[in-house]
Amino acid sequence: MKLVSYRQIDRGAWRAGLLAEGKITDIAQALPGAPDTLLGLLEQWEEWKGRLLTLAQSADVQATGLATEDVFLGSPLPRPASFRDFYAFEAHVKTARARRGLDMIPEWYRFPVFYFSNAAAFLGPDASIQQPKATEWLDYELEVACVIGKAGADIPPERAHEHIAGFCILNDWSARDIQREEVKVGLGPAKGKDFATSMGPWLVTPEELEDVRVAGAKGERYDLTMVARVNGVEYSRGNLLDIHYTFAEMIARASQDCMLYPGDVIGSGTVGTGCILELGPEQYGWLKPGDVVELEVERLGVLRNTISESR
Amino acid sequence: MKLVSYRQIDRGAWRAGLLAEGKITDIAQALPGAPDTLLGLLEQWEEWKGRLLTLAQSADVQATGLATEDVFLGSPLPRPASFRDFYAFEAHVKTARARRGLDMIPEWYRFPVFYFSNAAAFLGPDASIQQPKATEWLDYELEVACVIGKAGADIPPERAHEHIAGFCILNDWSARDIQREEVKVGLGPAKGKDFATSMGPWLVTPEELEDVRVAGAKGERYDLTMVARVNGVEYSRGNLLDIHYTFAEMIARASQDCMLYPGDVIGSGTVGTGCILELGPEQYGWLKPGDVVELEVERLGVLRNTISESR
Repeated sequence: MKLVSYRQIDRGAWRAGLLAEGKITDIAQALPGAPDTLLGLLEQWEEWKGRLLTLAQSADVQATGLATEDVFLGSPLPRPASFRDFYAFEAHVKTARARRGLDMIPEWYRFPVFYFSNAAAFLGPDASIQQPKATEWLDYELEVACVIGKAGADIPPERAHEHIAGFCILNDWSARDIQREEVKVGLGPAKGKDFATSMGPWLVTPEELEDVRVAGAKGERYDLTMVARVNGVEYSRGNLLDIHYTFAEMIARASQDCMLYPGDVIGSGTVGTGCILELGPEQYGWLKPGDVVELEVERLGVLRNTISESR
Repeated sequence: MKLVSYRQIDRGAWRAGLLAEGKITDIAQALPGAPDTLLGLLEQWEEWKGRLLTLAQSADVQATGLATEDVFLGSPLPRPASFRDFYAFEAHVKTARARRGLDMIPEWYRFPVFYFSNAAAFLGPDASIQQPKATEWLDYELEVACVIGKAGADIPPERAHEHIAGFCILNDWSARDIQREEVKVGLGPAKGKDFATSMGPWLVTPEELEDVRVAGAKGERYDLTMVARVNGVEYSRGNLLDIHYTFAEMIARASQDCMLYPGDVIGSGTVGTGCILELGPEQYGWLKPGDVVELEVERLGVLRNTISESR
């Protein structure tokens, strides 16, 4: 099933909805007693998951509901509990480093690495992305995120799937000029990433991806083509199968000696070719106001955002 | 005034309290209509600040209230809205780098740098710190944090004080062996820091620090001695005056093209000599279960935590 956060009026409260046949059904109205936000549902995921799946299959849902054109879609989690972003595609790390004249790092092959980023700057598919005043090198990053639906610490990789509520497309917008300077100090990227992250358009639960799931010794991978287009021109193309570390390995790493909570978002990192930094800004140019960036991942939809002038 | 988060029974809900003369007055009970958590109060800080100051000065508060020995004290914010940690003391950066054979970084002098860390692992003065299973190099970090009480973006340094609700002692517990490996990958510290941050024992509002405030062109500094003791032996000693970047400069940096929210925590970074990494682990040894770490900052109290075995 596909879950969304939507609102009917601008600046209204985000509500959890179920998307089927292009129509959105309000979950709290359809299931008496259900929390009215997706985060609320995730916090009681064991209790609601089955009833949501039943609702998704009912004829009622497909016959009624709001047309997606008539609502605003937000990030499925307008305010995630936390946001960790990993660095799990080898090609991205290799290419990005090579462009700075740097060799691959041996430690990268030893364990999956992440950084915490700003969970308070999430935007959905209907939001414009304001170019930060301080950057001239604005970039997108084509990623997939998983959303945690069950708390836990020290989660072994083989049980990680029990903690995943679903998957989304994620765009980790980046200010490369700011990032380039700040990372020299050794604390990683922060100001280069804190102004916006977009996610959506839907949260897709794992049972929808059964037929593209590829089991492996280190956890599941998914055979899903990933594409980015800028103003309709294809820039990036990859596949989620190419990920070096599985979400299971990332969850195991993140939860080592540390609690994960419902509503935590875990980003995959950028797929190979999945940003302008990798492709070559001298050829592609950085993003500018008016540009339309579409990230498309099979089964997960299209996450489309337009760049706007800074405030 | 001094604000706390307290509970009378283990695992109960944290409630906001006012501390005066060693007694805690429950704020929501004393002020009808007031939110019962400190985060709730910060979200309506303009509305409640004045009434809290009046309450703090009333004789009632000093005569009644709970003895601090009879309650559990949590982190003033048991779950901050976010946690940014800066790197604002020159001596710490210089010494920590020199110990790895590295020179000082020119960029450090150009702008204040921070990383986002785990806002979901905050502990208070009555919590024990579980040594992560994955570390043998456990360290403390002696810091001061400011807590945001008013939302805003693009906050100029000269107006930053309007956004500060108060100050706390902060201990950014660190697993140095994990940190040393992960930072090589270039995303900064994350697993080396995510298991625990302690804060407290109180949130001290700025009017209590008027007489130790030192105005300057780049914002206010505070003349407050900072000390760390391990098992009663003094390890670290510094002064908050020695900070290179003021909290005003840090708030300006953090809020550039980015919203700050009530309940956001901004750490100063470690004061010079304020951790074992700097002092020399070969002489001081890393922390181990049973060790008692006390961070004391004038006016801000003593933040005392005991290390326990890993789970």
